[in-house]
Amino acid sequence: MPDPILPEPPRLVPADPDYEARVRASYARQRFMAGMGAALTRVAPGEVEIELPFDESLTQQHGFVHGGAIASALDTACGFAASTLMPADAGVLTVEFKTNFMAPALGERFRFAAHVRRAGRTVTFVEAEAIALAQGRARTIATMQATMMTVLGRDDVRH
Amino acid sequence: MPDPILPEPPRLVPADPDYEARVRASYARQRFMAGMGAALTRVAPGEVEIELPFDESLTQQHGFVHGGAIASALDTACGFAASTLMPADAGVLTVEFKTNFMAPALGERFRFAAHVRRAGRTVTFVEAEAIALAQGRARTIATMQATMMTVLGRDDVRH
Amino acid sequence: MPDPILPEPPRLVPADPDYEARVRASYARQRFMAGMGAALTRVAPGEVEIELPFDESLTQQHGFVHGGAIASALDTACGFAASTLMPADAGVLTVEFKTNFMAPALGERFRFAAHVRRAGRTVTFVEAEAIALAQGRARTIATMQATMMTVLGRDDVRH
Amino acid sequence: MPDPILPEPPRLVPADPDYEARVRASYARQRFMAGMGAALTRVAPGEVEIELPFDESLTQQHGFVHGGAIASALDTACGFAASTLMPADAGVLTVEFKTNFMAPALGERFRFAAHVRRAGRTVTFVEAEAIALAQGRARTIATMQATMMTVLGRDDVRH
Repeated sequence: MPDPILPEPPRLVPADPDYEARVRASYARQRFMAGMGAALTRVAPGEVEIELPFDESLTQQHGFVHGGAIASALDTACGFAASTLMPADAGVLTVEFKTNFMAPALGERFRFAAHVRRAGRTVTFVEAEAIALAQGRARTIATMQATMMTVLGRDDVRH
Repeated sequence: MPDPILPEPPRLVPADPDYEARVRASYARQRFMAGMGAALTRVAPGEVEIELPFDESLTQQHGFVHGGAIASALDTACGFAASTLMPADAGVLTVEFKTNFMAPALGERFRFAAHVRRAGRTVTFVEAEAIALAQGRARTIATMQATMMTVLGRDDVRH
Repeated sequence: MPDPILPEPPRLVPADPDYEARVRASYARQRFMAGMGAALTRVAPGEVEIELPFDESLTQQHGFVHGGAIASALDTACGFAASTLMPADAGVLTVEFKTNFMAPALGERFRFAAHVRRAGRTVTFVEAEAIALAQGRARTIATMQATMMTVLGRDDVRH
Repeated sequence: MPDPILPEPPRLVPADPDYEARVRASYARQRFMAGMGAALTRVAPGEVEIELPFDESLTQQHGFVHGGAIASALDTACGFAASTLMPADAGVLTVEFKTNFMAPALGERFRFAAHVRRAGRTVTFVEAEAIALAQGRARTIATMQATMMTVLGRDDVRH
């Protein structure tokens, strides 16, 4: 029989009480996400959601939404999820990410939900799922694991 | 002293003699890449290059090109590099990719060079580098390792 | 407010009714896992758990269990989780995996729990967590995302 | 025609003139690598090579060397390659790695060659290849991309 001991979820306490306003202002400066038609729909400590309606301009050669567009929204959700827990004067940079594609990106709209798994002083580990929504049904189409870095004292990456 | 034996590069022979025309026609159906302003600049057996000029519409909150845009072009280069070696009636789908970001995406233009490391019947392994070009200098800013799948007999992923 | 629609979990039905005996017999031929002291503690459709007691022989330079030992057990759990859903005459090969390390591997024993996220005819996507157990507490120390391949008709990878 | 501009390789200058002795002493405290029979065969600025003879104790169910053993040696090579460039009092921890397996691990012996691609103050990006040697021929069987972290001021991860 499996051991009943389960891992405890980490406590995620924002260092910056104004994290939501800061993250929303930073998102508003994201030209690439706006151009794709993506919206920031949820900001909570260690958690961010982005939504993206289907649009022909996002497709690849088969008519599915391009895996790169999916990864772009996942990366953005991961970065801002990490940012919610960072100091007010910090910037966030993506160190690396990995995406597994589980199904073609077909749907009326897509939701990208990221949550921090481990927040360190410099390095934060975030996971995210891309979910396709169509005809009242939801299907996970891709996952991301991302390493984000807190950057302090560099004007070019400060908000 | 290190052993002088070096790995032999794989032989990459296209199964489809018209691979270049096929890949170029498929690229032309990529709405997402066209919208970003990316161009397919090189197609050879197991190798593809894409170029992307800097544009404000591609930026994230710090003014760098969005990591997702970089990953999108890398993924596309990897997919078509794999496709050059596939049968004429095959489609290509991304199974997964990983990107490490080495430097912020700053530059006048960006080059994405992908080459197949191993081409299997179903699964192909491709590597790519993203290179920023500015003032006559080149700098690798990101890498990708991608697993691509050959898809046969599915109308929705055929070219 | 977030949409209440949640993704449905995939149905995981073993093609081989004797999957458990087959997986346990295959595990018993794993010399590397046995040498590490790891035991296969759970086999269910799409799910496998492995346990590993701490041992000095597994450590790296800081006295923690080596990340490679953690990845070895995670990879094994992922491979056999995929194998539970494969035909009786199939072999399983790892295409790729990624591991994020969340905390140093310190503990009395370690549990590695893998579950299939998507089972395709050729390619299966599996996720796993490494959990350190110490003094009645559990802590996730690493994650894995792995792509596994079903191999048919190759004697060298058949069970 | 492709642009002739090629990326410049990074300058890799060890901060610690005694990096080789330090890395070799740290490797000697690696119980797990010693148990596998692996030897540290090369230490240079930003570069490390490890060699591993084939042994039955390293095999998985098909008789190939276990992918986890391959990943363990790759991870070790990546960690010490990063360590060559770190301050004398620093420890190195693996943040994450990804491995793609290109061919079954069959051979008389295996070489693991890691080189630093980008060395930052906190985060270092390293790539490595696993090469199987048999009958005078060499074949790349796996790749690794790894993110390593410099750890200062923590006794448990100091050398």
